[in-house]
Amino acid sequence: MSSRYGFLGPTGTFTEMALRRCSQVAAAVDAERIPFASVDAALAALRAGDLEAAMVPIENSVEGGVSATLDALAGGEPLVVVGEQVVPITFVLAAPVGIALPDIRAVSTHPHAWAQVRGWMGAHLPDVEYLPAASTAAAAAGLAAERPAYQAAVCAPVAATNHGLTVLQEDIGDNSGAVTRFVLVARPGELPAPTGADKTSVVLFQREDHPGGLLELLEQFAARGINLTRIESRPNGGRLGDYCFSIDCEGHVNDERVGETLMGLKRVCADVRFLGSYPRADSVEAQVSAGTRDNDFTEARSWLRSLRSTSTP
Amino acid sequence: MSSRYGFLGPTGTFTEMALRRCSQVAAAVDAERIPFASVDAALAALRAGDLEAAMVPIENSVEGGVSATLDALAGGEPLVVVGEQVVPITFVLAAPVGIALPDIRAVSTHPHAWAQVRGWMGAHLPDVEYLPAASTAAAAAGLAAERPAYQAAVCAPVAATNHGLTVLQEDIGDNSGAVTRFVLVARPGELPAPTGADKTSVVLFQREDHPGGLLELLEQFAARGINLTRIESRPNGGRLGDYCFSIDCEGHVNDERVGETLMGLKRVCADVRFLGSYPRADSVEAQVSAGTRDNDFTEARSWLRSLRSTSTP
Amino acid sequence: MSSRYGFLGPTGTFTEMALRRCSQVAAAVDAERIPFASVDAALAALRAGDLEAAMVPIENSVEGGVSATLDALAGGEPLVVVGEQVVPITFVLAAPVGIALPDIRAVSTHPHAWAQVRGWMGAHLPDVEYLPAASTAAAAAGLAAERPAYQAAVCAPVAATNHGLTVLQEDIGDNSGAVTRFVLVARPGELPAPTGADKTSVVLFQREDHPGGLLELLEQFAARGINLTRIESRPNGGRLGDYCFSIDCEGHVNDERVGETLMGLKRVCADVRFLGSYPRADSVEAQVSAGTRDNDFTEARSWLRSLRSTSTP
Amino acid sequence: MSSRYGFLGPTGTFTEMALRRCSQVAAAVDAERIPFASVDAALAALRAGDLEAAMVPIENSVEGGVSATLDALAGGEPLVVVGEQVVPITFVLAAPVGIALPDIRAVSTHPHAWAQVRGWMGAHLPDVEYLPAASTAAAAAGLAAERPAYQAAVCAPVAATNHGLTVLQEDIGDNSGAVTRFVLVARPGELPAPTGADKTSVVLFQREDHPGGLLELLEQFAARGINLTRIESRPNGGRLGDYCFSIDCEGHVNDERVGETLMGLKRVCADVRFLGSYPRADSVEAQVSAGTRDNDFTEARSWLRSLRSTSTP
Repeated sequence: MSSRYGFLGPTGTFTEMALRRCSQVAAAVDAERIPFASVDAALAALRAGDLEAAMVPIENSVEGGVSATLDALAGGEPLVVVGEQVVPITFVLAAPVGIALPDIRAVSTHPHAWAQVRGWMGAHLPDVEYLPAASTAAAAAGLAAERPAYQAAVCAPVAATNHGLTVLQEDIGDNSGAVTRFVLVARPGELPAPTGADKTSVVLFQREDHPGGLLELLEQFAARGINLTRIESRPNGGRLGDYCFSIDCEGHVNDERVGETLMGLKRVCADVRFLGSYPRADSVEAQVSAGTRDNDFTEARSWLRSLRSTSTP
Repeated sequence: MSSRYGFLGPTGTFTEMALRRCSQVAAAVDAERIPFASVDAALAALRAGDLEAAMVPIENSVEGGVSATLDALAGGEPLVVVGEQVVPITFVLAAPVGIALPDIRAVSTHPHAWAQVRGWMGAHLPDVEYLPAASTAAAAAGLAAERPAYQAAVCAPVAATNHGLTVLQEDIGDNSGAVTRFVLVARPGELPAPTGADKTSVVLFQREDHPGGLLELLEQFAARGINLTRIESRPNGGRLGDYCFSIDCEGHVNDERVGETLMGLKRVCADVRFLGSYPRADSVEAQVSAGTRDNDFTEARSWLRSLRSTSTP
Repeated sequence: MSSRYGFLGPTGTFTEMALRRCSQVAAAVDAERIPFASVDAALAALRAGDLEAAMVPIENSVEGGVSATLDALAGGEPLVVVGEQVVPITFVLAAPVGIALPDIRAVSTHPHAWAQVRGWMGAHLPDVEYLPAASTAAAAAGLAAERPAYQAAVCAPVAATNHGLTVLQEDIGDNSGAVTRFVLVARPGELPAPTGADKTSVVLFQREDHPGGLLELLEQFAARGINLTRIESRPNGGRLGDYCFSIDCEGHVNDERVGETLMGLKRVCADVRFLGSYPRADSVEAQVSAGTRDNDFTEARSWLRSLRSTSTP
Repeated sequence: MSSRYGFLGPTGTFTEMALRRCSQVAAAVDAERIPFASVDAALAALRAGDLEAAMVPIENSVEGGVSATLDALAGGEPLVVVGEQVVPITFVLAAPVGIALPDIRAVSTHPHAWAQVRGWMGAHLPDVEYLPAASTAAAAAGLAAERPAYQAAVCAPVAATNHGLTVLQEDIGDNSGAVTRFVLVARPGELPAPTGADKTSVVLFQREDHPGGLLELLEQFAARGINLTRIESRPNGGRLGDYCFSIDCEGHVNDERVGETLMGLKRVCADVRFLGSYPRADSVEAQVSAGTRDNDFTEARSWLRSLRSTSTP
């Protein structure tokens, strides 16, 4: 029996593309892919043991879900990230066979996608009516209805293919280099092995807010030469003004420099939530500063032991 | 003629509530309030000179637009924040007169709002169909159609009132303390006067990414005792991996400590974009550390001048 | 047979007083006390195995030797500090029986002591001739010569007693609160046990000099909440411009926070020379910041182990 | 009438050599050079207006006086450093004409000099008696007495010349690269003009001692890319445990980056004592980090002014 992997659905979204491309995790390739209506629903199923893992957006998603993902990982039963995927965001204008540009009076898509194609729309379909959809794929699927209220959808190329639509125009996004970052989330268990090109994610809860408070946390990273790749202050428990920090950094928890950083954070924070160590999607190897390689730590530990051992007569 | 203020529409959203409550800015009270379909559209009208100001969400918005706001402020013609509003997010389940809970087979609302009421829905309307809307207010408005495809909307209390709907259940949000933060944006001009309880917003573009790079930027704040209230790394120009930082801090650009911090950032960053100084929504006065009051700076400047003046024979 | 303890002589100097008062180290109380003509000579005898330990000045000494001590500890065969003494510097004007103030035409003492009594001398013996001596005690001893070239000595009270001199005036130092700090130095061996009121001394050799280089070293202390009690940049190998740093800090190498700091320094410095952990002369207990107690480190280590252990299937 | 310059005497010491070589200060070349018996005496005469300036040792002096210099500059009527000299320390063994090595039974010199030639003495005159002198030059001068108690002096080459002595052996110091640093001190007045290769000296009095306290002070330098060239913690007012910091850094008070650093220190310290800006003896130009050149500050100030000016309607 193949394993079950969830994703923020429906079929044909960028999230499904991320899951399909997730060749890092061997088991994901042949897995059954199960769409969920929301990030919360996917992660609830994961926590309940119904899934092996779930693919959800975490940064700059077209379909939303980023805040939901950050908050769902920061609270509740522990989950960890075991992989990431970065997917180029390419929108197409898709329509049923026989529909041409002049025929289009209404277009449907997810509101976030709509915001990203407004330049093209303003230039080519300035008077078109916009009908929101729950996802770009749902907009594409809706064109199969008997008498749809709209003639075209803005969606991912795969969704056009899935639903037998014609692509009237490729690549209509206003920002041609846009990408969305997705993470594959699992219950705590076997950590992905270090590859030399890894990331570690944590949520840091400050002891109390004061000038320089964030600085003290970041010094724990800097003191071990560790670069951050993402930082966001997040209202703690839904309240503005009481913050935690959602952070991604380079390196793997099994790296000495990351381990000592995490211990330092554990000591100075009210709480630290470990969200996993996993291979980077871009496979860029971490640049390790002088004095922060594993053997630098090992040698320093031996040296300290020799200093202390002199205390035994 | 009254002045024109835009907002992320339609009428009846939390954004309009934020604009209505914006008594800090005298001109806003009697202004004509004009809804826009997107943050980009509102800010484009503002840049074109069609509006005095625009209210848009900037943090944890139910209706989306946060990324759009951050990115629209970080690029293009300069705009500045001149005020902020923090609005409690209270959802109601609203329906036309005569509709009761058992009659509801489909519910419409914005996808973000839907994500925030899933707990209540799972408990009370587990089998209901969800139809997405472009906003919570649009969902409410849609119930006035001749034969709507759904029987109830999740929306702000004001939207229920606006459209003559009955509130079947108040306060159905899963997180009862949730708030959204909105900012009133204007073209650069007269800065709001310092009140002692101000915030300043900036976007910092790093010279190059390296371990401790963010730390160097934050030291500019810490060296003058300035507390941050929000920080987010943002992909620069839509690319992951090349970051800028969107930051709110305590204090006003006219405060000496903030002015010197901004100068320091200007020197060490590739670029600094000033997004305004404005009164805090919560009126919490800034705690000013020893040695960072305006007169500490004035005295230090006089002292330095006296040291240097000895160079004139 | 009693053990042999050296000191910067001769008998009757403040250094001997420091050694006499060294009750912290049990063996020192009954030790044979052997004067040496210089710090280098005392430490050479110690390195050669002729002494158990040697008492030498390290900060603000009347009799000199401070630079010699710092440099002798920074290079050569390793030695460690095992105790410290802080001795109030009280000068007396001493003369043979029968000599009164008006009889004094010349006074002898060590040049450093002379510098510290110039106020009293200017007021009471303005026309006296000054004859330098190799130590305050040597000046006192010289009065026993058959026909000394001077009539009085500036020395420690004990030296007056030792040589049967009359104290013409007590406490003639210009700075009545002056003290000198001495350290008891030994070959590496059994470390003094932690007392909760300890100091640790190190010499740090920088990798290369650059702006903020010293800051990076000090951050290793600050990141673990450790206070410095002395810092001096020292020319490395006698050349100005190539520096090392001689540092005393609070805490004992067996304290977790000190151990991790030393490991951090070992990693980021070209070299670290450990100069010992020993009880503070003033018995002031270290204030340990939140998150830096031994059990904070132990708990953080257990937590890290639990994170990593999930990597074992 | 030529101006009067004091120095730590007597004639023929390394300090006089430093004054003779002080061609940076035009007036010093033709000045009358007046020896003083102590640093305190020289600085007292300077403060009293009897001298234009005084040359005194400040780092690693053979003749002592370093602590006296540091403490005299840190307290009392303000004085400033207007120049520095670095003098190679070269000792010779000098004796009257006709005396050869085998004739020497006793040698005189300053105790600090004696400490630096012990290697040579141990190898070549192991049984010689040591007689302390108040300075190396005084030891040389004493050989002119009718029946001196010693046959040779360890002194600077110039002192041998001054007193008509024969040099029995050149360069007998144990550390052949040793140098001493001297400073030319004056009453506050015209500052030396910036040269691009300058130093600035200050004494910093901490507000209160706490972990990371020194770090906060040093961050003021690092935040403007300024390198330190000397740091020493000094007991404040003669008491151990209450510290101030004597610091030299690169740059001139008229440099923008140094000016802003001094203002920052003034704000965060209990007190800052400015000890002058002056050309470096070694003429090494300061490396100025990106963002800390004068025009970076000027541009940042203009930019801030433009931000603030928008506040005027």
